[in-house]
Amino acid sequence: MLKLTSLSLEDAKRLIHAAEVKAATIGSPSNIAIVDAGGNLLAHVRMDGAQIASISHSINKAFTSLACKLPTHVLGQDAQPGGQFYGLSNTVEGRIITFAGGVPLRSGHELVGAIGVSGGTAEQDREIAEAAKVAL
Amino acid sequence: MLKLTSLSLEDAKRLIHAAEVKAATIGSPSNIAIVDAGGNLLAHVRMDGAQIASISHSINKAFTSLACKLPTHVLGQDAQPGGQFYGLSNTVEGRIITFAGGVPLRSGHELVGAIGVSGGTAEQDREIAEAAKVAL
Amino acid sequence: MLKLTSLSLEDAKRLIHAAEVKAATIGSPSNIAIVDAGGNLLAHVRMDGAQIASISHSINKAFTSLACKLPTHVLGQDAQPGGQFYGLSNTVEGRIITFAGGVPLRSGHELVGAIGVSGGTAEQDREIAEAAKVAL
Amino acid sequence: MLKLTSLSLEDAKRLIHAAEVKAATIGSPSNIAIVDAGGNLLAHVRMDGAQIASISHSINKAFTSLACKLPTHVLGQDAQPGGQFYGLSNTVEGRIITFAGGVPLRSGHELVGAIGVSGGTAEQDREIAEAAKVAL
Repeated sequence: MLKLTSLSLEDAKRLIHAAEVKAATIGSPSNIAIVDAGGNLLAHVRMDGAQIASISHSINKAFTSLACKLPTHVLGQDAQPGGQFYGLSNTVEGRIITFAGGVPLRSGHELVGAIGVSGGTAEQDREIAEAAKVAL
Repeated sequence: MLKLTSLSLEDAKRLIHAAEVKAATIGSPSNIAIVDAGGNLLAHVRMDGAQIASISHSINKAFTSLACKLPTHVLGQDAQPGGQFYGLSNTVEGRIITFAGGVPLRSGHELVGAIGVSGGTAEQDREIAEAAKVAL
Repeated sequence: MLKLTSLSLEDAKRLIHAAEVKAATIGSPSNIAIVDAGGNLLAHVRMDGAQIASISHSINKAFTSLACKLPTHVLGQDAQPGGQFYGLSNTVEGRIITFAGGVPLRSGHELVGAIGVSGGTAEQDREIAEAAKVAL
Repeated sequence: MLKLTSLSLEDAKRLIHAAEVKAATIGSPSNIAIVDAGGNLLAHVRMDGAQIASISHSINKAFTSLACKLPTHVLGQDAQPGGQFYGLSNTVEGRIITFAGGVPLRSGHELVGAIGVSGGTAEQDREIAEAAKVAL
């Protein structure tokens, strides 16, 4: 048997709140999603004014970061033409997102969940996700 | 042109909070999802202990109620063998759910969104969704 | 944070071995799959002579039992016409299986994974899954 | 009529064992999958610590190598922008993987199955797959 640690819903709400505050501060209404250690959705919000394509993007960025154990912007580099994982985009039932905004969440060295943010520029999405991570 | 009214994220959070309180009261940890007037996800939570199949069920119950303008338990009657909509289950890209827990939300006569609850018995899911509706 | 326990690959191999022995004993070549506490595939085997439709059935029976916290034959009763979960079959991206052969695996009261068996009659599949469960 | 030769489950287990030994030796916990001559999954394992995105990747790398009769890293070259198979990635119901780790398995000149490995760098995945091939 393996002993694991995973985010609770309370953790997810605290992280989402931090992301919402950052998103409001920088004026980038966003979709924000949190998955647990198993890659399963824990919570999601779409801020008023955020685009609907980003619903799926936020959920799948969180899933991707958890499932690949890496931030999505790092995967995006390896997924470029000529990169070692070219063709990675959209694998795993179309769920792998290779642009910025997904960040794994660790407690010590253990992967306990991930956050995905979508709605702004790549830089804004990543900035909001990183800000939320601090609230962990 | 059409004038529309739709739930905001603030509305969604208030409804989800009411659903969480009811779910805790009756001891049925649930997934709870809210969609807006366009059928698009506004917010979702998975309470600790709620099963992961219900993530998809809650989101799609909310979608179904909005998209069909009916509670999912009513659709379930029409979807039975011999019913007028037999075969309805899982249509629309697999998103139509025909068991209880999805309820449309109206402001006056206008459909402004829907809630989907999943995780307990059909009766519990419906009870929680109805309780949240009061918070509208 | 939540503290969880999940099957390891070693656990999965032991359970699969027990299932293979039982399947050979009763003459029902099977697909056997194990998922962890997050519903993610840990291991799968297709015994020589087992049908290929059962690859997906075994994996999704294991997923269903974990995701719904119930054996698939129990879900099958509620999913019948007139049942409280009629329409459940094939929900969650087509992954919910409502016939026998999927069984949740618990350590004490905690859900740590699930097994799915497919290839024989409903009764055979269930018998093999139950036999493997004893090896937990 | 055609006479075919295909891997048995016993072959698959021997190959997976060889891959697990190599993966442990080089410190790259992996998902390992074997498909038979029909492209259908024979066996899969996810080593403890291997990421969950790689479940699908390993199975589909094996499928791709069998289905295209080529190692996935070779396909990856042709799938680059300007390459003769640009656009190949994710075709065939999303199953074609164009990065390293999938290797066809032959007995003499006959294609009898394929292996897919995923979890490390492109180089590690390929190294593990090649090591397993020797156990054929």
